Amino acid sequence: MPRPVADVLLDVLRAWDVRHIFTCPGSTEAAVLDALVVRDDVELVLTTHEGVTVSIADGLSRATRLPSVAYLHANVGLTNGLSNLYAAQLAYSPVVVLNGLKASSIQSRGGFTTGRRMRDLVHQYVKSDWQSLTAEGIPEDVNRAFRTALTEPAGPVWVGLSQDLAEQQIEAAVPLADGYRFDSRTAPSPAALAAAAKLIADARRPVLVAGSELARVGAIDALVALSEKLGVPVLHEDRRGLERPGFPTDHPNFHGQYIPQHPLVRDADLLVFLGARLFNEFEQARVPQLPPGARVIHSHTDPQHVAAIHGVDVGLVGDQRLLIEALLNTVPLPVEPRDVPAYSPEPRSAPTRTVGGGLRPADVVDVVTEALRGVALVGDATTAGGVLQQRAEQRTGDDYFVSTSGSLGWGMGAALGVKLGMPHRQVAAILGDGVFQFGMPALWTAARRNIPVTYVVLNNERYAAVGAALRRFGGHAVRQNQWPGTDIAGPNIADISTGFGVPGQRVDSLADLRERLDAARRLDHPTLIEVMTASDDFGP
Amino acid sequence: MPRPVADVLLDVLRAWDVRHIFTCPGSTEAAVLDALVVRDDVELVLTTHEGVTVSIADGLSRATRLPSVAYLHANVGLTNGLSNLYAAQLAYSPVVVLNGLKASSIQSRGGFTTGRRMRDLVHQYVKSDWQSLTAEGIPEDVNRAFRTALTEPAGPVWVGLSQDLAEQQIEAAVPLADGYRFDSRTAPSPAALAAAAKLIADARRPVLVAGSELARVGAIDALVALSEKLGVPVLHEDRRGLERPGFPTDHPNFHGQYIPQHPLVRDADLLVFLGARLFNEFEQARVPQLPPGARVIHSHTDPQHVAAIHGVDVGLVGDQRLLIEALLNTVPLPVEPRDVPAYSPEPRSAPTRTVGGGLRPADVVDVVTEALRGVALVGDATTAGGVLQQRAEQRTGDDYFVSTSGSLGWGMGAALGVKLGMPHRQVAAILGDGVFQFGMPALWTAARRNIPVTYVVLNNERYAAVGAALRRFGGHAVRQNQWPGTDIAGPNIADISTGFGVPGQRVDSLADLRERLDAARRLDHPTLIEVMTASDDFGP
Repeated sequence: MPRPVADVLLDVLRAWDVRHIFTCPGSTEAAVLDALVVRDDVELVLTTHEGVTVSIADGLSRATRLPSVAYLHANVGLTNGLSNLYAAQLAYSPVVVLNGLKASSIQSRGGFTTGRRMRDLVHQYVKSDWQSLTAEGIPEDVNRAFRTALTEPAGPVWVGLSQDLAEQQIEAAVPLADGYRFDSRTAPSPAALAAAAKLIADARRPVLVAGSELARVGAIDALVALSEKLGVPVLHEDRRGLERPGFPTDHPNFHGQYIPQHPLVRDADLLVFLGARLFNEFEQARVPQLPPGARVIHSHTDPQHVAAIHGVDVGLVGDQRLLIEALLNTVPLPVEPRDVPAYSPEPRSAPTRTVGGGLRPADVVDVVTEALRGVALVGDATTAGGVLQQRAEQRTGDDYFVSTSGSLGWGMGAALGVKLGMPHRQVAAILGDGVFQFGMPALWTAARRNIPVTYVVLNNERYAAVGAALRRFGGHAVRQNQWPGTDIAGPNIADISTGFGVPGQRVDSLADLRERLDAARRLDHPTLIEVMTASDDFGP
Repeated sequence: MPRPVADVLLDVLRAWDVRHIFTCPGSTEAAVLDALVVRDDVELVLTTHEGVTVSIADGLSRATRLPSVAYLHANVGLTNGLSNLYAAQLAYSPVVVLNGLKASSIQSRGGFTTGRRMRDLVHQYVKSDWQSLTAEGIPEDVNRAFRTALTEPAGPVWVGLSQDLAEQQIEAAVPLADGYRFDSRTAPSPAALAAAAKLIADARRPVLVAGSELARVGAIDALVALSEKLGVPVLHEDRRGLERPGFPTDHPNFHGQYIPQHPLVRDADLLVFLGARLFNEFEQARVPQLPPGARVIHSHTDPQHVAAIHGVDVGLVGDQRLLIEALLNTVPLPVEPRDVPAYSPEPRSAPTRTVGGGLRPADVVDVVTEALRGVALVGDATTAGGVLQQRAEQRTGDDYFVSTSGSLGWGMGAALGVKLGMPHRQVAAILGDGVFQFGMPALWTAARRNIPVTYVVLNNERYAAVGAALRRFGGHAVRQNQWPGTDIAGPNIADISTGFGVPGQRVDSLADLRERLDAARRLDHPTLIEVMTASDDFGP
């Protein structure tokens, strides 16, 4: 019996445990939308901009460690989703991008919303890009896309589906996903592991650096055990590479975030980077990023990161949990138990106003992280990002999500996906006002589906990162105290949010902020708190 | 004397008569922002999303026929601007995209916001993509970019500027733009022109089809003269290819828009397409797009369009003004003067409510086009686009701007660029509610710079084009009267606009709409009118 290929496609999705299709559809997606009318095992989650389509899928995949589906429309929809697809890629998020394309004849004729090189657009952001050539081939192509997205190192995959093919009926059987699921994790070679174990055993002042990969692959417990067994302090990876925490911040062995100036780093004779990037550089380093003389072990699931910038003494490629467990079993106990020095994070200073009288972002972040203790946070704030990373409680790998992509607005959709993936957690997104203008359509989906995420927007009415760059540049701007390209004052973000059906409130004192945050924890609908911060503080 | 290369770059822009730099900057653009502090001959126009950065530049270029500059930030900024760059490309808009890139060393190390194949992202949307290799090369590279953008057929060009290069001081002289400006127009070969002239002279029922190119290159007057001399009726090109009108709708020889069912088309023995696309197909045609038996002349500035889909009897490549003037001089007067039949456009029916009680989009468009007579319109409405095209007064090529890209939201930024380019014209943008959510950040720039554009949003609370596609598909959706992926009700668009500082008002009657439109004509600031239309009308 011939069946609509769109219906078979939904079977493939179900076989991979997909329950949501995120989309901002166009006419090319009619067959799939139509197939959804008579099914209740796959849910359509409508979005109103492809940036949201992709980031909500990414957030869901990050929270669940399962594949997700972003169904994009034509070339314009694909390009609108690319910056957040880059974010998904950096986090090894298995987002399967299905891309509805115009009918084959329209493509070949260069018609409306077609591109002659669709795959060029997406190639550098996915593990595989393939445009199905026949209707019968679609189920297998999509099945293979899931397989590829999940094979380690995981990541986004793209499949182009032409409208004429997607609207056909086919006889093909549904591929059985089970045969395409396999344990693709690898462990480093025994020789490499032995070399690493020896370096660790011989080190006198080793430091472990926990990367984002640990949370993704469930290796945090193993690292805690390794750290405790060896009595070695642990740092989070450098802020620019951190997608999520790799070690509990409330563990006694936790010692803050990797910076070359960290006393433990300066004194270390061995640095062991586990699932971390080394490094995702923002600008040319002014100081050496690795202490001279220290030995370096660098492990990552993805070989592209190992010895890519800095040479290593031992490089280890493979699954972080497998390799940490192997180290646990092979590294001997230290001859003398190490005494991990106590960690005293920089004390929070008492809140003060800036010269201009505004709230300091750091004080706002203190209140937010304090009031939202226990809430999973999604960070997407440029200026306040550094202090947020330092202050946010991160007891598990699912407590704090951020993107190293620089794709503004990512967090507004991602927070929705995180909430869909962790329905029993409270979720809040901490945003900048510049970020807000990139992610606004997420508010529509939040309101429509009543996804109870709390959005907190720090509104300094500035592209403060641009101001900071001008300050570093040290030219006319500094001399004349003029900061072109930085002043984005104007919008009432709370009112805009309310206009979307997500009740917004603007506050300008820490007391009001605290009160609103407390209230937000009890709400069963999305909400937005806009907190006005100092526009004269360009951050660190 | 060494000078900052950023300052030299601004000299190059000035040499090409550029007065505005549109940008949504990041830290990589610091040197250029800094150089702007001490200059008043180039104005920074800040935007808060790259979709706006590109569309406002595109709108300016369309209105002025001059090059414009969109300065984008890194890979994420570039991808965010791509869908509107596609729009600029289709309109042959000479938008010079300068793209700030991270420092060379950060690029090679794959650092923050870098891409290993930046040129792949933009290649298919520009005439040339080049990343400057030295600081000394930047002025020449950018100078060449302008030259290439303006050489016919014109179009967008991309130059990548690494931060380390853009921050240097150089000794290089400013290239003299004058030597790089040249008349790049071409005329078709005399043989091709003679063949066309003979076909026209021999035809008994020829029809001229005026394409978007005519307005871009200033050829409308020539076509009016040709049409009058020969006594030949003129149609606008097919809606899917139309970027702007190519013939005055109030001219007695104007006969509506090209559709194969048009009586003049059905009866024609010769169709002369001038600067039109033949065709920009939306879907596979159900009827022949050209009448069987009619001969076809197709001319375009861009040879890619000629004989690309449909074979021609004569193809002409070259500037549309030059070739129409050549035809004027060579085609003999008809032996007997032709009698152009009178054109009676479909009469506007009296406003009615839909079954569900809502305003019909066609009635709203009638009121809008009537009340805004004389105002330059920018159209970006999917469902209402067809009727808007029919009803909008188009006396000149600058009365109506639209994009054939399918890039939603384009019109919100483009309208600002059109207004900047035609400060003495009133400008309004006619938008759909789906479109609105793609273009919202344009409201920030409108408010900040107080650009008095009138935004009219037809809010049917639907992706009606998706509903129409489901209806055409004729499956479960039709049988069960369920329309997944179409319902985008919720936002109060007027309130959102007000939140941006662009006063918005929602109306739900034609009388209120008329009143608001009349009032808007007298305003000296931007405004938005949200008119609620029927959600049960999926359009034609």
